[in-house]
Amino acid sequence: MSLSDLILGKPLASSESKKEELTVWTGVPVLGLDALASTGYGPEAALTVLSIAGVPALRYYPLIVILVVLTLTTLYFSYRQTAEAYPNGGGAYNVTKDNFGTGVALWAAVALLLDYLLNVAVGISAGIGAVVSAIPSLHSHTLMLCLLVLLTLTLVNLRGVRESGLFFVAPVFVFVVCLAITIGTGLIRTWLSGGQPQPIVPPPPIPPPTASLSGWLLLTAFANGCTAMTGIEAVSNGVPLFRQPTIPNAHKTLTVIMLILSSFLLGLGYLCPAYHIGAMNEQQPGYQNILSQLLAAVAGRNVFYYVSLSSVFIVLTYSAQTSFADFPRVCRFLAEDCFLPPAFAKLGRRLVFSCGILVLTSFSGLLLIVFGGITDKLIPLFAVGAFGAFLSSQTGMVRHWLRKRGPRYRTKLFVNAIGAVTTAIVLVIIILAKFKEGAWMTVVVAPGLVVLLRKINQHYKKIAREVGQAVELHPSEINPPAVIIPVKHWNRATERAVRFGLLLSKDITAIHVSTEKEDKGRLQELWREKVEKPAEALHSPIPQLRIIDSPYRQISEPIIEFVNRTAKEKADRPVAVIIPELVEPHWYEFLLHNLYGPKLEAELLIKGDERVIVINAPWRLRDT
Amino acid sequence: MSLSDLILGKPLASSESKKEELTVWTGVPVLGLDALASTGYGPEAALTVLSIAGVPALRYYPLIVILVVLTLTTLYFSYRQTAEAYPNGGGAYNVTKDNFGTGVALWAAVALLLDYLLNVAVGISAGIGAVVSAIPSLHSHTLMLCLLVLLTLTLVNLRGVRESGLFFVAPVFVFVVCLAITIGTGLIRTWLSGGQPQPIVPPPPIPPPTASLSGWLLLTAFANGCTAMTGIEAVSNGVPLFRQPTIPNAHKTLTVIMLILSSFLLGLGYLCPAYHIGAMNEQQPGYQNILSQLLAAVAGRNVFYYVSLSSVFIVLTYSAQTSFADFPRVCRFLAEDCFLPPAFAKLGRRLVFSCGILVLTSFSGLLLIVFGGITDKLIPLFAVGAFGAFLSSQTGMVRHWLRKRGPRYRTKLFVNAIGAVTTAIVLVIIILAKFKEGAWMTVVVAPGLVVLLRKINQHYKKIAREVGQAVELHPSEINPPAVIIPVKHWNRATERAVRFGLLLSKDITAIHVSTEKEDKGRLQELWREKVEKPAEALHSPIPQLRIIDSPYRQISEPIIEFVNRTAKEKADRPVAVIIPELVEPHWYEFLLHNLYGPKLEAELLIKGDERVIVINAPWRLRDT
Repeated sequence: MSLSDLILGKPLASSESKKEELTVWTGVPVLGLDALASTGYGPEAALTVLSIAGVPALRYYPLIVILVVLTLTTLYFSYRQTAEAYPNGGGAYNVTKDNFGTGVALWAAVALLLDYLLNVAVGISAGIGAVVSAIPSLHSHTLMLCLLVLLTLTLVNLRGVRESGLFFVAPVFVFVVCLAITIGTGLIRTWLSGGQPQPIVPPPPIPPPTASLSGWLLLTAFANGCTAMTGIEAVSNGVPLFRQPTIPNAHKTLTVIMLILSSFLLGLGYLCPAYHIGAMNEQQPGYQNILSQLLAAVAGRNVFYYVSLSSVFIVLTYSAQTSFADFPRVCRFLAEDCFLPPAFAKLGRRLVFSCGILVLTSFSGLLLIVFGGITDKLIPLFAVGAFGAFLSSQTGMVRHWLRKRGPRYRTKLFVNAIGAVTTAIVLVIIILAKFKEGAWMTVVVAPGLVVLLRKINQHYKKIAREVGQAVELHPSEINPPAVIIPVKHWNRATERAVRFGLLLSKDITAIHVSTEKEDKGRLQELWREKVEKPAEALHSPIPQLRIIDSPYRQISEPIIEFVNRTAKEKADRPVAVIIPELVEPHWYEFLLHNLYGPKLEAELLIKGDERVIVINAPWRLRDT
Repeated sequence: MSLSDLILGKPLASSESKKEELTVWTGVPVLGLDALASTGYGPEAALTVLSIAGVPALRYYPLIVILVVLTLTTLYFSYRQTAEAYPNGGGAYNVTKDNFGTGVALWAAVALLLDYLLNVAVGISAGIGAVVSAIPSLHSHTLMLCLLVLLTLTLVNLRGVRESGLFFVAPVFVFVVCLAITIGTGLIRTWLSGGQPQPIVPPPPIPPPTASLSGWLLLTAFANGCTAMTGIEAVSNGVPLFRQPTIPNAHKTLTVIMLILSSFLLGLGYLCPAYHIGAMNEQQPGYQNILSQLLAAVAGRNVFYYVSLSSVFIVLTYSAQTSFADFPRVCRFLAEDCFLPPAFAKLGRRLVFSCGILVLTSFSGLLLIVFGGITDKLIPLFAVGAFGAFLSSQTGMVRHWLRKRGPRYRTKLFVNAIGAVTTAIVLVIIILAKFKEGAWMTVVVAPGLVVLLRKINQHYKKIAREVGQAVELHPSEINPPAVIIPVKHWNRATERAVRFGLLLSKDITAIHVSTEKEDKGRLQELWREKVEKPAEALHSPIPQLRIIDSPYRQISEPIIEFVNRTAKEKADRPVAVIIPELVEPHWYEFLLHNLYGPKLEAELLIKGDERVIVINAPWRLRDT
């Protein structure tokens, strides 16, 4: 068993891929995971902004949560329709491509890629935020822990997640149940105490305000809070995964997710101000996320607290996991449409798209490092990506109804138009409110990526134009080549190369590049004795020897120059360069040679005339 | 002008190398540099050992210095004779090779390589030791400064030191004059004060003893102190550099160097105890080397102090520089004798042996990093390397006189025998006394290197045996090859490859590896239409298409298997694999392709049957 087999698992045959079918019970954890996990950072992101205006600002928190839930509701209705209209999977890329063509779809694809990328970074950093809330001594290792989780996810995904969805069910249920118990208990205590509940472990005091409350601050808090609805699109993307009848099952699942998520958001929106819970600075030791503060306040720091926070960590990590399935899939669509290299569409050894996984890991690792694993700094970038994807999907749907029409299309058009307008407004708010905090990056990077994808596409198109035609074979249209053989010494390897050259042509020139004051006469004499005489004796064509001086001790340059000059002189025939090369049985033995051969070959391919063909005549050394 | 031209200088032609001639005046600084610079670390190395036994141990310091000077004197007489016997340069490798053959010479070569390597590390670290003595705030950056000096030396040497020797003259004179003034003033003051001179700036107090004085401690101090004579062999290596008459000039130069070095050592040996100067711990902030302490004590911290310490820094750095000439030269000898890859014997763009320089930099950088740029830790390794080289040179000379005899050979034999015995004794003392402190490394590494060099040599011999013979050309002994062409699509690049194949043989098979459920019929149909029909029409041989299924989505493996099977079946002919390949005009465009071509080619060369030849039929894309 090789090392790669051990780490990545044995290769799987193409026929071993399998399919699973989701019900509502499994659909909620599998496709709702991402949306539900947003509870782990969305509400806190909004509260972080409000907290800088101090305790009085907290009373506006419920208002912001209500706005977020309203936006979520419009998205809910929109995505119900998307699921219905695209039963084969209504990802933003497919919907936009179907309705506007690939030009516009590229923008959707870029928004999706950024969305998934940031989902990984935010999911992991928020998950580690939960860990350091429970175990404060780990706070100084935040970034290291984030990268460790990322590495684990990467390895797991390169192996391929064969367990797939069902594996997620239990932790998501624990998460939902724990959060429901906490919020429920908190609400009852608050009502029983007349709105002034006594926390079991009091949350840390909220520091004095450093900014005054303003409309702008509320807008910013809303922009941040909108990340609470990321992942809501997963159900409409995954309709074909459901058991028959797929659409009703998808609808029910989406409804359940929507209801759970809304009640969590509203519950947190009510309880945080009631318990005087504010968002703490993630960069300061002693940081606790708001779920940790709420759990401690409502239930104390007991087993329940640790179980709940563990489930928060696991669910957030799993939500990052979903991107590992989705990001490579979008890359694959792009590669199949020739916007990315074909490697992205190639199934790896374990039937996963390894290339996409590695790119996702590299960039999300970079994001984590640049932002030090701090969720709050990643939120603005994430919000732009997510709402960019929402917007493209919604506008695609609007166009869909305008084109398709069909029964009751006006109502459907209206619902999606409301969705598109709401999303557009939110996106503008996010960009304006969080421009300086990082939204500008997404705004700069996205068009850059679109341009890059287009350039790549143009490149493939050019290749297709130039070589793609299925021309007829023209067997007669070729003359025997002029053969050129670079020789360093006359030995058995060179002899075999010359012999092979005689098969190809009568016109053979050996060239020797002389870099130092060496005995050129010796090689000339050998040539006369060992090559010319035997060839004459057999009336075979006689290979010529040419010696070229190289005062600057270059080897390949004079050879390439000679080859290209020959190609110009003999314009009616190809030029074949035969490179005699020693091949060692072990890789480290290659270190013992100058590797002129491979270097010359690479340079001949790149700098050689159009008609130059390179022939490798290897002499394979035996392993002794 | 390219970036590499800017950093490394324009390439130089082989004819541009020049020669310079040394007199005694220039010979002392150029060839004495290394030996004189040893004053910068040798005396301190001995004192470091004594200092741990506290103030009383200092009175043994003169004794140790006298022993060192006696050893130096025997070496002086020995090397006089070496210079005379080998007027073309009597390096340890040449002398040993000439007298014992390459087998023993390898040990000399390894000792020399280690010696030069450590000379770089010690020269730089001691030089930076002088810098941090003068500017204590730099102490925490010791390692960084060492690496900076190393990098500068490397770049300078890759450019080639055209100024060479004469460039060294001025700083060495300044160094000698400053040290002579200091020691002279110190001696006069000491005598005038009756042996109790008043220091202008008192040296830091010597800490209380942490070990008791013992014979063993004195031996260790002597072993360390012997590094003061490293570099004394330079004159005998460099005899051909002198102006005519070379040998007398060399003799005079060696005498002058010997006299200066001895008086410096004796002067320091007398003054350090007189001024109560002990060696300080290099790793502690506030470290001052003994030259800095002595300068401050004798002359105060004034301009003279800074000028002198600057010259110490420059001379030590320059002494590291000498290894940059010598290390690559030994590598070159080894490469010419086939103990190292030929790259070491290849002149770089600036007529220097770049490969040796880079290896020297890498390993001395590694030493500096591992030992944190602390001279004291490098000293034991250095001493073993240097005395190993001395010993091999001296025993070579003994053998020389036994073989050559000639007039007065008994006296000469006696002198070199004394030299060899002294060196051997000192080497044993060094290894025993400093075994735990690092000498064991040299003792372990040296035989390992000898084995490695031998293995490399065996490898080249094996190659020479297998392919080296100047066989006669056998033009008739070859059948047309079986041609195999891997095809992915049918396009213009494939067409050209097939067309070239028709030149070679009538037996052509195209193979297509099918990794997914694709429409194989499409390719078969195209083949029928575009290849077989036109070939039939022209009564040309008909290329066959074979489709191979690859359930694990491998590409090269099934192709190699097919090629090797073909080679077995058609045992009377070569197998030529023609790889149609797209060649992009820009390197980054290669990122857009799967690079199956180069990968397949490399694997065919390594894993292919003995008779497999690989032909690259490139389709060069135009730059638009």
